[in-house]
Amino acid sequence: MTGEPFAAVDVIRTKRDGGRLTGEQIDWVVDAYTRGVVAEEQMAALAMAIFLRGMDQDETARWTGAMIDSGERLSLRTARPTVDKHSTGGVGDKITLVLAPLVATCGAAVPQLSGRGLGHTGGTLDKLEAIPGWRAELSAAEIGRQLDEVGAVVCAATPTLAPADRLLYALRDVTATVESVPLIASSIMSKKIAEGSRALVLDVKAGSGAFMKTRERARELARALVDIGTAHGVSTTALITDMNVPLGSAVGNAVEVAEAVAVLRGGGPPDVVELTLALAREMLASAGLSGVDPAPVLASGQAYETWCRMIRAQGGDPEAPLPRPAHVHVVPARATGVVTGLDAYSVGVAAWRLGAGRARKEDPVQAGAGIRCLAKPGEFVEADQPLFELHTDTPAAVPTALEALNGAYTVTTTGTRDERATAEELDGIVLETIRP
Amino acid sequence: MTGEPFAAVDVIRTKRDGGRLTGEQIDWVVDAYTRGVVAEEQMAALAMAIFLRGMDQDETARWTGAMIDSGERLSLRTARPTVDKHSTGGVGDKITLVLAPLVATCGAAVPQLSGRGLGHTGGTLDKLEAIPGWRAELSAAEIGRQLDEVGAVVCAATPTLAPADRLLYALRDVTATVESVPLIASSIMSKKIAEGSRALVLDVKAGSGAFMKTRERARELARALVDIGTAHGVSTTALITDMNVPLGSAVGNAVEVAEAVAVLRGGGPPDVVELTLALAREMLASAGLSGVDPAPVLASGQAYETWCRMIRAQGGDPEAPLPRPAHVHVVPARATGVVTGLDAYSVGVAAWRLGAGRARKEDPVQAGAGIRCLAKPGEFVEADQPLFELHTDTPAAVPTALEALNGAYTVTTTGTRDERATAEELDGIVLETIRP
Repeated sequence: MTGEPFAAVDVIRTKRDGGRLTGEQIDWVVDAYTRGVVAEEQMAALAMAIFLRGMDQDETARWTGAMIDSGERLSLRTARPTVDKHSTGGVGDKITLVLAPLVATCGAAVPQLSGRGLGHTGGTLDKLEAIPGWRAELSAAEIGRQLDEVGAVVCAATPTLAPADRLLYALRDVTATVESVPLIASSIMSKKIAEGSRALVLDVKAGSGAFMKTRERARELARALVDIGTAHGVSTTALITDMNVPLGSAVGNAVEVAEAVAVLRGGGPPDVVELTLALAREMLASAGLSGVDPAPVLASGQAYETWCRMIRAQGGDPEAPLPRPAHVHVVPARATGVVTGLDAYSVGVAAWRLGAGRARKEDPVQAGAGIRCLAKPGEFVEADQPLFELHTDTPAAVPTALEALNGAYTVTTTGTRDERATAEELDGIVLETIRP
Repeated sequence: MTGEPFAAVDVIRTKRDGGRLTGEQIDWVVDAYTRGVVAEEQMAALAMAIFLRGMDQDETARWTGAMIDSGERLSLRTARPTVDKHSTGGVGDKITLVLAPLVATCGAAVPQLSGRGLGHTGGTLDKLEAIPGWRAELSAAEIGRQLDEVGAVVCAATPTLAPADRLLYALRDVTATVESVPLIASSIMSKKIAEGSRALVLDVKAGSGAFMKTRERARELARALVDIGTAHGVSTTALITDMNVPLGSAVGNAVEVAEAVAVLRGGGPPDVVELTLALAREMLASAGLSGVDPAPVLASGQAYETWCRMIRAQGGDPEAPLPRPAHVHVVPARATGVVTGLDAYSVGVAAWRLGAGRARKEDPVQAGAGIRCLAKPGEFVEADQPLFELHTDTPAAVPTALEALNGAYTVTTTGTRDERATAEELDGIVLETIRP
């Protein structure tokens, strides 16, 4: 009667009753939703049924394919092997800024289509936009040219990639259907596969500052992501990495760019260096360049040259001074001892409240806002020594940021300068690796 | 920020995760949905979460109360005790037509606000509208006056009663969230309680022609209905009754009116008489009139006088000839023997296809369309003897009706005239009674 091969209500009922959706049902429901034939309330009911009943590996791979088919698929023409990285989002996660130029310097092409931040985790584009002149929007032709000439591009995903995912994500956000592994995994992978990279390394974060609070949940997501990539012929690996403590010392926009530049010049915090090299090794292996050791390339400062070319290719001035905040508030240590805890989530929320992040998609962010953590777990501090620097253009935000930081860190007074107290540090940043 | 005490996404998340909704959350979400503050997609996700996670007795009673509070509550002023009946819908269910005037004749006031049919079960208003001149729409003042003067009124529910239920029902219909006991029970009871009756008897049908296919599911619904009524101070009883076989011989509109009139005049099919009397006894007991025996009142034809007054009060002519169909098709028995099965669902679907019912709310129905079942289970038939009369104004519908009837009945050739073969008949129509 309607010319449609299925009725939405039958598809919903199948999943509601715990059944498997057929490939044809999945292709149709995603396409019909994008065309507006399946109504928002019908997709909401289906999303809740998927949330509570799950989707198996085949259903999830097919769902991802249907979302890819809702839009364009980039075909990146470059002589180098392409490899991409995606992080599920953490606090102080400036890794992309270092990793893209580093892996490009080692010989691969890194097309990194990124997003803006929402909530307590910052967005890579927000950070790069702190650089005077830099622009996030590139055409497909510009992306291809920059990949050939520089080897690395970090830019905004075009709205033509997986439009079904954009619609569905907005719907899930208002219907409490976000935290479903098959829906998260297909959302991430539909965009990444549509970008056309042949290899993908995933940084799945676990801990207080991450979307997945436990290692078990992170492992479940990592497995789903790797399975989808593999089903779609993309060489996919996932590292599960610790996100109980912020990465590095800087959390925000300009402050994170400055820290990334320090790492690119061969210095910077050891945890940022460690995670960058672990991801770089996986990316190079996926790209067929396992003979290249990224460590000496990073230490030598060569990657910094690629960074400068990458920033300039998008209109930015890598040598220009970064924006500074109107106001800096220093938080001193309350006691003398060893820092034994520093909660990533609390620091992320504090930086967000200072203006580094946004509550709604349409909000602006402050380039200069953020936090510098002056002592990380395991470090010895004297009472009244500065522990945090709060940067903001809106001093009225300081009390709410201090509230978020209240209880976010522990100083153990019986400790000595050499004591190492956190399990995370003993384990290292990379907790495990998930392969196909 | 928004002036709303809750966020819809938090309410959905609570139920999604298997939690109990608080009374305040329920009051708010139903009210906010009616106001348009909770979006259709949010209510769809919540309905699916309720479908899969359930609601307990207190939640369901509160949800019902919130739907009642979304609209008006009739206050029926009448000197007689009021008592209402509701059926969950069956095939050939013309009981209301007999019961309302019968119970009124016995001394109670019966305000019966009814609906139109959808799908394979007919609607009481559709049947009454076969009577020339009869009108379903009455004002609250007219209802009150007719209750005083006649004692019985069967009319359309006003749109001001439980408007939240009307919105939610339309949403559930397109999101595969209809068949949830707490949602069905609160939908039925919100309208019935809003009508203002002090006592209520429910006819919960079980079997192929019913919404609840098994006795267990019917019992679950009956229990939920009685619990809600009791929680709201309405004296509520439920009978679980058999709906594997059509009630009586007539299924349709005018044909059912004719059969109801035969019962009101002291004749008619024994199963219709049996169920009418069982429901009448419960209604009279609920209304404090347990001393009155409805059987002699029905047998004497006194209830027919009340019927005539009830029809005339709403503009109808009870003596006028009923509409006749343009076409009658006779289906003969294929063999000689005892009818051992007659599937209510198949007969309902066949009558619907002949034009007695509607597929969509806005479709018209044919007053003359329907089916007469000329032999019921347990009766002996000769080969080629007429088994069904198919009535319709659209002869093109006959083949699709015959298709629905194919396999709908069984004639056991080894049987003899006296054999009684169906368990349903041995059990009687009323299977059990659920009380507070």
